[in-house]
Amino acid sequence: MDTFIKSEEMHQATLQALQDRGVGLLDIAQITLFLQSKYVPGLTIETCLENVEQVLEKREVQNAILTGVALDVMAEQHALPQPLQHIIETDESLYGVDEILALSILNIYGSIGYTNYGYVDKLKYGILDWLNDKKNGTHTFMDDLAGAVAAAAASRLAHRYRSLQEQEQELNE
Amino acid sequence: MDTFIKSEEMHQATLQALQDRGVGLLDIAQITLFLQSKYVPGLTIETCLENVEQVLEKREVQNAILTGVALDVMAEQHALPQPLQHIIETDESLYGVDEILALSILNIYGSIGYTNYGYVDKLKYGILDWLNDKKNGTHTFMDDLAGAVAAAAASRLAHRYRSLQEQEQELNE
Amino acid sequence: MDTFIKSEEMHQATLQALQDRGVGLLDIAQITLFLQSKYVPGLTIETCLENVEQVLEKREVQNAILTGVALDVMAEQHALPQPLQHIIETDESLYGVDEILALSILNIYGSIGYTNYGYVDKLKYGILDWLNDKKNGTHTFMDDLAGAVAAAAASRLAHRYRSLQEQEQELNE
Amino acid sequence: MDTFIKSEEMHQATLQALQDRGVGLLDIAQITLFLQSKYVPGLTIETCLENVEQVLEKREVQNAILTGVALDVMAEQHALPQPLQHIIETDESLYGVDEILALSILNIYGSIGYTNYGYVDKLKYGILDWLNDKKNGTHTFMDDLAGAVAAAAASRLAHRYRSLQEQEQELNE
Repeated sequence: MDTFIKSEEMHQATLQALQDRGVGLLDIAQITLFLQSKYVPGLTIETCLENVEQVLEKREVQNAILTGVALDVMAEQHALPQPLQHIIETDESLYGVDEILALSILNIYGSIGYTNYGYVDKLKYGILDWLNDKKNGTHTFMDDLAGAVAAAAASRLAHRYRSLQEQEQELNE
Repeated sequence: MDTFIKSEEMHQATLQALQDRGVGLLDIAQITLFLQSKYVPGLTIETCLENVEQVLEKREVQNAILTGVALDVMAEQHALPQPLQHIIETDESLYGVDEILALSILNIYGSIGYTNYGYVDKLKYGILDWLNDKKNGTHTFMDDLAGAVAAAAASRLAHRYRSLQEQEQELNE
Repeated sequence: MDTFIKSEEMHQATLQALQDRGVGLLDIAQITLFLQSKYVPGLTIETCLENVEQVLEKREVQNAILTGVALDVMAEQHALPQPLQHIIETDESLYGVDEILALSILNIYGSIGYTNYGYVDKLKYGILDWLNDKKNGTHTFMDDLAGAVAAAAASRLAHRYRSLQEQEQELNE
Repeated sequence: MDTFIKSEEMHQATLQALQDRGVGLLDIAQITLFLQSKYVPGLTIETCLENVEQVLEKREVQNAILTGVALDVMAEQHALPQPLQHIIETDESLYGVDEILALSILNIYGSIGYTNYGYVDKLKYGILDWLNDKKNGTHTFMDDLAGAVAAAAASRLAHRYRSLQEQEQELNE
C-alpha cells in the first residue's frame, strides 16, 4: 500500500520552513496589503494574513516551498553538486527554476496574480529586500516563493472581494 | 463604479456554451472516470460528474471556456480576420493557443493533471473523438478545453480521495 | 493535403496587427531598453529593436498576438457574444486570459522574463500607459502582449549578452 | 564582478547527468521518433537524435535537468530533509514539481508539446518504463525530464519540417 505524508504534517513542515528561513507570515501579509489595499477599501493586515494562511494550506504551495527551501538550505551547506551549487549560491541571473516554482504557486489562484508577483519581486518590497541581501543567507528560491505566496493571497482576496460585492449588490436590488 | 458579470451569470453562460457546442457534462465525466477509476476503487460516474461540476464553478475555467468557444464559433461563421480564420478553421498543427487555454484550466488544480490531459487528448477518448471530426463543426478549442476540464476534475478527485484516506487512517489509529 | 499559413505571411500579419493597433516596434523596444539598460552597459535602442524584431519572428508569439488582437478588435466592434463582450470591453479584473497569452510569449525565452513582464505591466511604462487609457480603444490583450514582447526581448538580450561576456573572457584567458 | 558558469560547462554537466542516471540520448530520441514518425514521412532516428541534442543546448533545459537530477540523487542518498525525502523517494502522487520542471522544458518550444509529453508519460514509453521501475533507482524527476526533452525535440522537429515544406512549396510555384 502507498504510504503518504498527511496534510497536517505537510502544513506544519511548510510553516516551520518559512520560520526557519526568517520569513514570518506577517511579512508576507504586508506585501499582500501593499498590493491590494488600493483595490479593496478598508483592507486590514488581519484579512491579508488570513488569506496568506489559506494559501499555505494548498498542497501545491507546500510542495513548491518545501522543494525550494531544501535547495536554498543545501546551497548554504555547500551540499549540492556542481555546477548547481554555484548557480543557486550566486542566484545566477539565467537560472529560472525559482521563477518556475513561484508560478506553480500563483497558478492555483489563476493568472491574475502574475503581474503582482513580478512587480513586488522587482521592487524588492518589504521582506523581499532582506531576502535579497546575500549576507542574510542563500534565499534564491525563498524570495520568489514569498513574493508568489503574497501575490496568490492577493488573487484570493480579489476573488473573495468580488463575491462580497455581488452579495451587497443583490441586497440593494 | 466598476460593473462586473455576476458569478451565476458566468456559470450559466459556461454551461450553455458547452451544451450549444454538443458537449454534455456526462461526456466530460466519462473521461474523468476513465482516467481515475484505477486509482480510486469503486469510483462512480456520479462522483466524476460532481467533480466536473465543481471545476466549472471556477472563474478561470469559465473565462477559458467562454473565450475558446467564442473563437470556435466565430471560425465556423467565418467571422475571424485572416490568417487567424484559416488557422483555427483547420486546427493548424503549429497553433498552440488552444493548449495554452487548456493549461490555464489544469493549473487551478495543480500540475498533477498535465499528463492526464495530454494522454486523453492524444487518445481522442470518448467525446474528444467526436470533437475532432471536422464534419461535427470547428472545435479547435473545445476538444482541448473538454479534455482539460476532465483532467482537472481527475486532479480534484485525487486530492479529495487522499483526504478521505487520511480520515480513514486516523480512525484506525 | 494539409494547407498552412506561410511563415512570412504570419510575420507580416503580426507586424500589421501591431501597427493597426497603434503599437510601434520602437515603443516596445523602449520598454526593453528601460528593463535591460542597467544590466547591459552601453545598451542602445537599436539593439533592443533588433531583439524585439527577432521575438516577433517566433510562431508562438505570432499566434498569441493575432489571437489577442482579434479579440480586442471584435470587442471594439461589439461582435463578441455576451458575457465575453462585456468582460473584454471593460478589461474585467478577474479575467486572466490576456495574462495567459502573455505568458506563452515569455515562455519561449524561459522563465527569467516573468518578473520583468509583471513589473512593466504594473508600472504602465511607456506605450503601456497609452494602451491602458480606454479612450484609445480596447486593448485588454494588447497591453499584456506588448509588455510580454518587451520582456521576452529583454530575456533574449540577457542570453546574448552572456554569450558575449563568455567570448570576451575566453580572449583574456 | 559577477562570475558565471560557462555554456559549455553547463552543457557537459547536463550530458554527464543524463549518462550517470542511465539515460542515453538515443533512448530519448526513440521517444521522439515514436511521437513524430507518423507526421514526418521518412523520419530517421538520426534526425531525432540531432533534435534532442539541440534541445539539450538550451540553458533552461539544462537548469531543469541539473536541478531535477540533483533532487533525485539526494533522495537516493537519503540526504533530503523530511518530509521532502519521503515524497521524492516514493514519487508521491500529489507531488507535481517534477511536472512543473518538465513544463519549463516544453515551453521553450511552445505549447504544442504539452500533449506529446503527457501521452508518453502515461504510456511509459521506452526508457520511461525503465525509469519508473523503483528497483532502478529514484527517478521521480528524471522520467518527466526525459519525456519532456523527447516531446520538446518533437516540437522542434515539427517547426523544422514545416519550414522544409514551405521551401518545397516555393520551389514548385
